[in-house]
Amino acid sequence: MKKILILGAGLSSSSMIKYLLDHSNENNWKIRVGDMSLDIATKKIENHENGEAIKFDVFNEQQRNEEIENSDLVISMLPARFHHLVAAKCVKSGKHMVTASYVSDEIQALHDEAVSKELLLLNEIGVDPGIDHMSAMKVIDEIKAKGGELLAFKSSTGGLVAPEFDNNPWNYKFTWNPRNVVVAGQSVAQYIDHGKYKYVPYNQLFKRTERMSILDVGEFEMYPNRDSLSYRKTYGLEDIPTLLRGTLRRPGYGAGWNVFVQIGATDDTYNVAGLESMTYREFINSFLPYNVKDSVEQKLCDYVGIDPESETMSRLKWLGIFDDTKIGLSEATPAQILQKLLEEKWALDAEDKDMIAMQHQFDYVLDGKNKRITSSLVVRGKDQVHTAMSITVGIPVAIATKLFLNGVIKQKGVIVPTMKDVYEPVLKELEEYGIVFIEKETDLD
Amino acid sequence: MKKILILGAGLSSSSMIKYLLDHSNENNWKIRVGDMSLDIATKKIENHENGEAIKFDVFNEQQRNEEIENSDLVISMLPARFHHLVAAKCVKSGKHMVTASYVSDEIQALHDEAVSKELLLLNEIGVDPGIDHMSAMKVIDEIKAKGGELLAFKSSTGGLVAPEFDNNPWNYKFTWNPRNVVVAGQSVAQYIDHGKYKYVPYNQLFKRTERMSILDVGEFEMYPNRDSLSYRKTYGLEDIPTLLRGTLRRPGYGAGWNVFVQIGATDDTYNVAGLESMTYREFINSFLPYNVKDSVEQKLCDYVGIDPESETMSRLKWLGIFDDTKIGLSEATPAQILQKLLEEKWALDAEDKDMIAMQHQFDYVLDGKNKRITSSLVVRGKDQVHTAMSITVGIPVAIATKLFLNGVIKQKGVIVPTMKDVYEPVLKELEEYGIVFIEKETDLD
Repeated sequence: MKKILILGAGLSSSSMIKYLLDHSNENNWKIRVGDMSLDIATKKIENHENGEAIKFDVFNEQQRNEEIENSDLVISMLPARFHHLVAAKCVKSGKHMVTASYVSDEIQALHDEAVSKELLLLNEIGVDPGIDHMSAMKVIDEIKAKGGELLAFKSSTGGLVAPEFDNNPWNYKFTWNPRNVVVAGQSVAQYIDHGKYKYVPYNQLFKRTERMSILDVGEFEMYPNRDSLSYRKTYGLEDIPTLLRGTLRRPGYGAGWNVFVQIGATDDTYNVAGLESMTYREFINSFLPYNVKDSVEQKLCDYVGIDPESETMSRLKWLGIFDDTKIGLSEATPAQILQKLLEEKWALDAEDKDMIAMQHQFDYVLDGKNKRITSSLVVRGKDQVHTAMSITVGIPVAIATKLFLNGVIKQKGVIVPTMKDVYEPVLKELEEYGIVFIEKETDLD
Repeated sequence: MKKILILGAGLSSSSMIKYLLDHSNENNWKIRVGDMSLDIATKKIENHENGEAIKFDVFNEQQRNEEIENSDLVISMLPARFHHLVAAKCVKSGKHMVTASYVSDEIQALHDEAVSKELLLLNEIGVDPGIDHMSAMKVIDEIKAKGGELLAFKSSTGGLVAPEFDNNPWNYKFTWNPRNVVVAGQSVAQYIDHGKYKYVPYNQLFKRTERMSILDVGEFEMYPNRDSLSYRKTYGLEDIPTLLRGTLRRPGYGAGWNVFVQIGATDDTYNVAGLESMTYREFINSFLPYNVKDSVEQKLCDYVGIDPESETMSRLKWLGIFDDTKIGLSEATPAQILQKLLEEKWALDAEDKDMIAMQHQFDYVLDGKNKRITSSLVVRGKDQVHTAMSITVGIPVAIATKLFLNGVIKQKGVIVPTMKDVYEPVLKELEEYGIVFIEKETDLD
């Protein structure tokens, strides 16, 4: 009997826990789920005979160490900053570990010891990072195998509301951590285009969008992610002339969000003064020059150069930023104030379902001919527990865990799923869960 | 015989050291000047019989402690981050201290001990902060004394090239630390206007300028400083509806500089890739979208929305940002690259003189009448040693030191020069050095 310890039972763990419980009898697994909230951990177990829920506190070193000692493999779904605490103990105690998060420097530093002890520390096996790595590497390896030379790779992912439930003018609802959406992009975005390094500061980011359409779910716009350059190494594309990764939103989102960026409403570095009695209208006015002649609406339009009759202005009005509604916070940064408003307006309704959309575009030359492969994925949530986000983050984690415990994945050390012997079986099984990439090849020129 | 220890003999110390040496015989002072460079310290002494130069290393704790022990009063002109090392030892050893820098939290924490030991730690007694405090408090106290109520206080200072030597299209040359100019304003600017808090993000800062003219030296524009709000407490103006502090440049500078802000060329957070062989033209191009149809010039104009025939574009071209000149750095941030270029273009010529301009504007109501006092200062450099910056930073430090050692200033503890018994005698003597404010009062309405 193999003991799998899952740390963190939040939204992103639901589908993963269900998968592991569903496969626990055939594989002879015991699934122990620890969370700050015993209640949440218990709910995820659903009285399964192989499941066990415990209250878990990552800061309790004794508990942390005991639980890891008593397991064979640990899946950490904790906030990413805690993974290294778990990883250090795993390596010390000879336990394997799986996470859906980026490899931190602390975790990378454990590689040699993990290899010498024949331990796997598999990271970045969620959706982004995770499914993006695997699906991109599959196509990249195929192009290279047939002798093609990659000229450009563009890849973007977005978590959005599913089209049938998309009923607000931003065509966006929070399907994931709202804070990350509000402060997204506040470091320079770096990519390479036709061999030229390109840098996009925050104040340009939401204007530098590219339009694209994905399968049958319509039009999107993509804004560049912070770091595209490091993916050249990750994907073995050191000499590729064009590489750009981005985040997907619906068309018009960028122009609307850019207004908040331009006025400074996403700043998370200082607390707003006099907040106790402030309204949203006064909040917006605090970013605009003093002028008693014009309304706040008119001042905003003049300040950021938008038409009062524009769709962008309709989107802003719909959010209620010009309303005399009290904010109701006593101490907050502009970003926190904006987040509070958006959490009300961009909340999923009880019946709403979410969607993950991902699209890769590979341009390559083969036998003197320029070709393009587009590889697209759309995953819709089943319900508000098994959301598209929960499925796409959790199912790859669970599948990889199973494949490793069953000896199909044999890698050791600190890795991400860019090797064929990892991505191939994981992608294959993901198809059973509706995570299927649709590839299309066209000739260019 | 009183022993004055001066730490740091750079440009800003020249006029201060000269003043103290000039007054050393009548006051029976010994002036010991320490600098990283013995050569620089020696030059500043000019073989004066009461002067002594030493090589001084602030990181050498033993030397630091010995030198402070052997003095009566220490003037620290070191970089501001080192003051607290000196201050801690001064308080421990019962020595007084004077600096031209902002009071840090570490120095503020020494207040009670300094008071109990009857020590003076006088800070912010240069030009900005320093002369601005003293000259503003003089007028504020006068308005309050006659029963006036202050409605608005705006204050701005700039270090620029003197008009006779102002011969480039930016009407600007470096007269002080170039790095501070390049990274200026990268935190949100906060002020209050008609009782409303106002926040200006970096990407708007150089568009939010106000025009003004000062005495006979012409037109300026002012952009808001980072923190105006804290001056309400400093100046005893807790309830003033409008308070704004800013930095002066010549008209058009803001529009030009804003181009660098908009494209991200002042970013100091990452190193530019592929810098070894990069030209300035390529550097600018790295911020612009890829597009083979248009020139870098055209792309820049389109990107930031300026006319190719505009004065802003002339200013940018004059800097050589479109030239195929190699940058010649191997590792640098965008801000460091821009600084290198500007240090060549905005250098003072051998005969050039600098200028400090400062203007306060006080609106107040007295007996139901609205009035405005404008208080203006222009100081020109004498030569490239006794620059306006060196005079206005150093002479107040020197005068205050003399007045304290002679018992005219009796304050103790950690203070800034906002008390009448400090600012009054200092301002009076500053007039002998050409630091004279011109006041003008007008009726409003």
